[in-house]
Amino acid sequence: MVTAAAYAATSADGPLEKTTVERRELGPLDILIDIKFAGICHSDIHTARNEWGGAKYPIVPGHEIAGVVAAVGSDVTKHKVGDRVGVGCFVDSCGECDACLAGEEQYCRKGVTGTYNATGRDGERTQGGYSTHIVVTEHFVLSIPEGIELDVAAPLLCAGITLYSPLRHWNAGPGKKVAIIGFGGLGHVGVKIAKALGAEVTVLSQTLGKKEDGLRLGADHYYATNDRETFKALRGEFDLILNTVSVNLDIDAYMSLLAINGTLVELGLPEKPIEVRAFSLAANRRSLAGSMVGGIPQTQEMLDFCAEHGIGAEIELIPASDINDAYERVIKSDVRYRFVIDTATI
Amino acid sequence: MVTAAAYAATSADGPLEKTTVERRELGPLDILIDIKFAGICHSDIHTARNEWGGAKYPIVPGHEIAGVVAAVGSDVTKHKVGDRVGVGCFVDSCGECDACLAGEEQYCRKGVTGTYNATGRDGERTQGGYSTHIVVTEHFVLSIPEGIELDVAAPLLCAGITLYSPLRHWNAGPGKKVAIIGFGGLGHVGVKIAKALGAEVTVLSQTLGKKEDGLRLGADHYYATNDRETFKALRGEFDLILNTVSVNLDIDAYMSLLAINGTLVELGLPEKPIEVRAFSLAANRRSLAGSMVGGIPQTQEMLDFCAEHGIGAEIELIPASDINDAYERVIKSDVRYRFVIDTATI
Repeated sequence: MVTAAAYAATSADGPLEKTTVERRELGPLDILIDIKFAGICHSDIHTARNEWGGAKYPIVPGHEIAGVVAAVGSDVTKHKVGDRVGVGCFVDSCGECDACLAGEEQYCRKGVTGTYNATGRDGERTQGGYSTHIVVTEHFVLSIPEGIELDVAAPLLCAGITLYSPLRHWNAGPGKKVAIIGFGGLGHVGVKIAKALGAEVTVLSQTLGKKEDGLRLGADHYYATNDRETFKALRGEFDLILNTVSVNLDIDAYMSLLAINGTLVELGLPEKPIEVRAFSLAANRRSLAGSMVGGIPQTQEMLDFCAEHGIGAEIELIPASDINDAYERVIKSDVRYRFVIDTATI
Repeated sequence: MVTAAAYAATSADGPLEKTTVERRELGPLDILIDIKFAGICHSDIHTARNEWGGAKYPIVPGHEIAGVVAAVGSDVTKHKVGDRVGVGCFVDSCGECDACLAGEEQYCRKGVTGTYNATGRDGERTQGGYSTHIVVTEHFVLSIPEGIELDVAAPLLCAGITLYSPLRHWNAGPGKKVAIIGFGGLGHVGVKIAKALGAEVTVLSQTLGKKEDGLRLGADHYYATNDRETFKALRGEFDLILNTVSVNLDIDAYMSLLAINGTLVELGLPEKPIEVRAFSLAANRRSLAGSMVGGIPQTQEMLDFCAEHGIGAEIELIPASDINDAYERVIKSDVRYRFVIDTATI
C-alpha cells in the first residue's frame, strides 16, 4: 500500500484541498506510477462540483496523467520500472465484451471504470491524477514515446485522444475539410492533429482573439462565429466539424456548414439536450454524432503519432496550490491552452 | 399545351377540389406522361394544409406518379411513347453542381425543383400528380420495369426511395440489424426492401396491432414501443434505425437501442426540433442522421431492385373523389398501407 499525496474536492462548492489517498497493493498485473504531471480537464471541474451528478466525495480529479513506472506486479510484461507512461480517462473495463475485444474499451458494454469518481471492479473508489502516485492495471497504462516531454504529453491522454479518435474515425486527411468549433484545451490539440493528418483545417471561434495562435499552431483558416457573415461564407463547406464547446450552441447554424454526407461530432457534452431540426439533418444527408475519447490501442496510436509529428499540448504549468485559481480561469476560458499540475508540488 | 384534369387544394383549410391545370408545351427534352396512378404521401397533406409554410395556392399535390409516356420532345432519347414511367419528388435541378454531377440531385446546391408547390427554373409554378397528365424533362423521368404493376409502383417513387437510399447508404445487408420505427406507408416498404437486402429486420411500432402484417411482409421481429420492456430488451442492438414517424419521439430512448457506431436516420421531418442528449451520441459513438429521398440514378436502381425482388407497396386504390376522406384516414394512420389514386377517376 502506498500513501500518496493528493488534492481532493470534498464538496460540490468548496475548494480542492490537500489530502492523502491510499493506493492499493500491487496485484500481479498492476503498475505503480510515480505521477509527474496531471492536466486539468473541464470534466474535472464538472465532476468536482457535481455538475453532472453522481459525485461521491472526496474526489481526487485528474485523468490526464503522465509519469514514470515506479514498480510493477509479478506478471506485468507491458511496462518496466523507469518507463515513461500515461493514464487517461479510464482504468478498467470488462475485457470480454465485443467493444473490449475490439479495443474500444470506452464503449465497454458493462461500462468502463473511470479514473476517478468511479467504483472499480474490486469495489473500491477510484481516485485520479492530482496525486503523486497511482496504481493501474497494465492494460490501461500507455507508453509515452521519447519524442514528447511528459508535461505536454499529459493533456494528450484526454484532450488528445478525444480529438484524434473522431478525426480518424471520420477519415480526416488530405482532401478533407475539417472545422473545429472552439479553440481551447481540446480545440488547439485538434488543430495540430488534424493538420498533421493532412486535412484542411478551419477554426470556428467566438472571436478572432486567438487567431494568431490558431494559424501558428496549424489552422489554415480562422473565423469568428459572432460574425453572422461567417455562416454565409462557409455554408456547405465542411466534411467534418468537431464541436469542442460544452455550452449549447445553435447547432442548426453549424449543421448548415456541412457538405453532403458531412458529420458534426459533439465532443463537449453540454448539460441541456441538443436541439436540431430534422431538416438540418435531411438536407445534405448530414449526421450529428458523438464520440467518447478512444480505446487503448488507438490512444497508443495517438501518442505515437503525436511523437512522430512533434505534437504536444500548449500548456501553463502550475503548482498544486494554484488548482482552485486554475479552475476559475478554465471556466472563463482564460488559459492558453491547458493547465498542467506539476505533481512534485503537491 | 395540354389541359389536364386535376385535384387541387385552394386554401389551407378547405378540401381538395376538382380543377384543371395547363401543362407546358413540350420542349426538346420534355416528356408528356399520361398519369395512371398517384400515391398519397403525408407530405402532400402537410403542404396542402400549409403545415410546413410556403404554400402558394392552388396546389395540385402528388409526387408518387406512375404512368405511360404519351409524347416526347424532339431530342428525347431516354424514353419513348408507350414506356411505363414514374416521377418522384422533384422534376428539375441545376445539373451543374457537385451534387447533381454525382447523381445526388436531391442535394443540388441551388435546390431541386419540387414536383408541386415549387417554382421551376422557367418561372412557372409546378403542379403534381393528382392529375391526368404531367410534363417533365427526361432526366427526371424514371423507367418502371415490367416486373411491377403501375399502381403498386407509384408509392415507390417517394416512400420506396426514401427508405432504399438510407438502407443502401448505411450498408444494410447480411449481418446487419436494422430497425424501422413506424409501420405505415414508409415503414412497410422499408421492411420489404431491408429484408430483400439481406438485413435482419425489426419493426418498432406503437402497438402490436399490425404485427401479423409486419411478419408477413418480411420483418424478423416486431416490438411494441408502448411497452417499456422493449427498450430494455433491445438496448445496444441495432446497427441502423430508420425513423419513419413524423411526430417528435423520445429520441434518446431510441438512440439507446443503437450498437457501437450505430446510426438513427430521421426520415419523418417532425415539426419541432429533435432533442437529443450529447451523451446519447457519445455513448457507443452514435450518429443521428437525416436523408432526403434519393438521386435519379439511385431511384432507378431502387425500381430495378424492387422489380427483381417483387416488391411493391401495399395499397388501397381509391377514386379521386375519396381524396379528402383519405387525407383524414392518413392522419389517423388508418390505411394499410398507402392510398393510391386511380387518376382515370379525376
